Amino acid sequence: MVSKAIVLLSGGLDSATVLAIANQDFECHAISFDYSQRHAAELHAAKQLAQHYHARHQLIRLDDGVMAGSALTDPAIVVPESGLDEGIPVTYVPARNTIFLAHALAIAEVQASTDIFIGVNAVDYSGYPDCRPAYIEAFERMANLATKASVEGQRLRIHAPLIQKGKSDIIRTGIELGVDYALTVSCYQADGQGRACGVCDSCRLRREGFAAAGVADPTRYTG
Amino acid sequence: MVSKAIVLLSGGLDSATVLAIANQDFECHAISFDYSQRHAAELHAAKQLAQHYHARHQLIRLDDGVMAGSALTDPAIVVPESGLDEGIPVTYVPARNTIFLAHALAIAEVQASTDIFIGVNAVDYSGYPDCRPAYIEAFERMANLATKASVEGQRLRIHAPLIQKGKSDIIRTGIELGVDYALTVSCYQADGQGRACGVCDSCRLRREGFAAAGVADPTRYTG
Repeated sequence: MVSKAIVLLSGGLDSATVLAIANQDFECHAISFDYSQRHAAELHAAKQLAQHYHARHQLIRLDDGVMAGSALTDPAIVVPESGLDEGIPVTYVPARNTIFLAHALAIAEVQASTDIFIGVNAVDYSGYPDCRPAYIEAFERMANLATKASVEGQRLRIHAPLIQKGKSDIIRTGIELGVDYALTVSCYQADGQGRACGVCDSCRLRREGFAAAGVADPTRYTG
Repeated sequence: MVSKAIVLLSGGLDSATVLAIANQDFECHAISFDYSQRHAAELHAAKQLAQHYHARHQLIRLDDGVMAGSALTDPAIVVPESGLDEGIPVTYVPARNTIFLAHALAIAEVQASTDIFIGVNAVDYSGYPDCRPAYIEAFERMANLATKASVEGQRLRIHAPLIQKGKSDIIRTGIELGVDYALTVSCYQADGQGRACGVCDSCRLRREGFAAAGVADPTRYTG
């Protein structure tokens, strides 16, 4: 019998690649979060990706009053368009991966799964603290003390297969696995049709990744 | 200036005591969770307790589809009434404290607070893995790798002042601090008016605690 994995699926390039990786060895249960993010078009992309992989797709609605103060959740904070500065950018969302992984942990336990996949990467990343290997290891350690399943001897694993990969490396991996990146939305301010701005940090990293990988960029850009 | 603390406030005996403890040294921002729990009367109690301490009270709505398979979230699973058995009881809720603390972490960061209070205890507890000291320590360690605030050098603390106390000890502490336990609801199946069944595990621990502390039990029981 194929084991079940819980896959965090934002609908972007990284998580689509992770879904393709997890899908090689597991029956995937994909989860996405509606946190009133500016780029809600990614949720439509997530749904399409899950369908493509015949994965169950669960959309989880988070309370609006929690992950505040980010350019991705507060319309009053402008998404930077002139490239990465020093330090952690204003697109950082407080404790986002901790909240996402906490939900994944509950769902894993309910679904009798011991494997959670997340598409964080620490190389071409945007300076987010909750994308670093030390963070993922600490979450896994905590998770293995948190649940009834862990007390009963089941060891939970947080898989972060992209964590040491650069964007072009991720794209090459995905292309080998047949990922259709035209389905994915990475832009922090994608429009209602999922078209990308081309100038936010996420668009820049993605565009540079396709160029470096020598792969035609299938992204639909506005204007 | 008084520092701000985030206090997890269920509305039960333990968290009411923790609020009174935190209130001695901090300006308290209390948070409660609506997770479609059977004993939603505790949320009314939490609101009253927060008002009593002039604390801000934030109610967070969690998605119904996540913490399933517990007697506290699934009406089809009966709450045990004949005393504690061996092992982890069916009132265990998957990853509950991890989800609660993850939200507290986000709110702490947004509120520029470095102190989170939680009313877990590992002595008279009901066998829940996420009430043990090792779990709390592991969460704190993870939290200090998770946020922008942590990268910027702010050390977050998870305070669990009851973790080594028995129920009677907790009650004595609360009485000294003037906690009005008549406001609190501990019962796993409290009725709409907050009246307790008297026979679930939580009621049993609470009742024994008042008896052992030599304090009149102010709980309103049904029937």
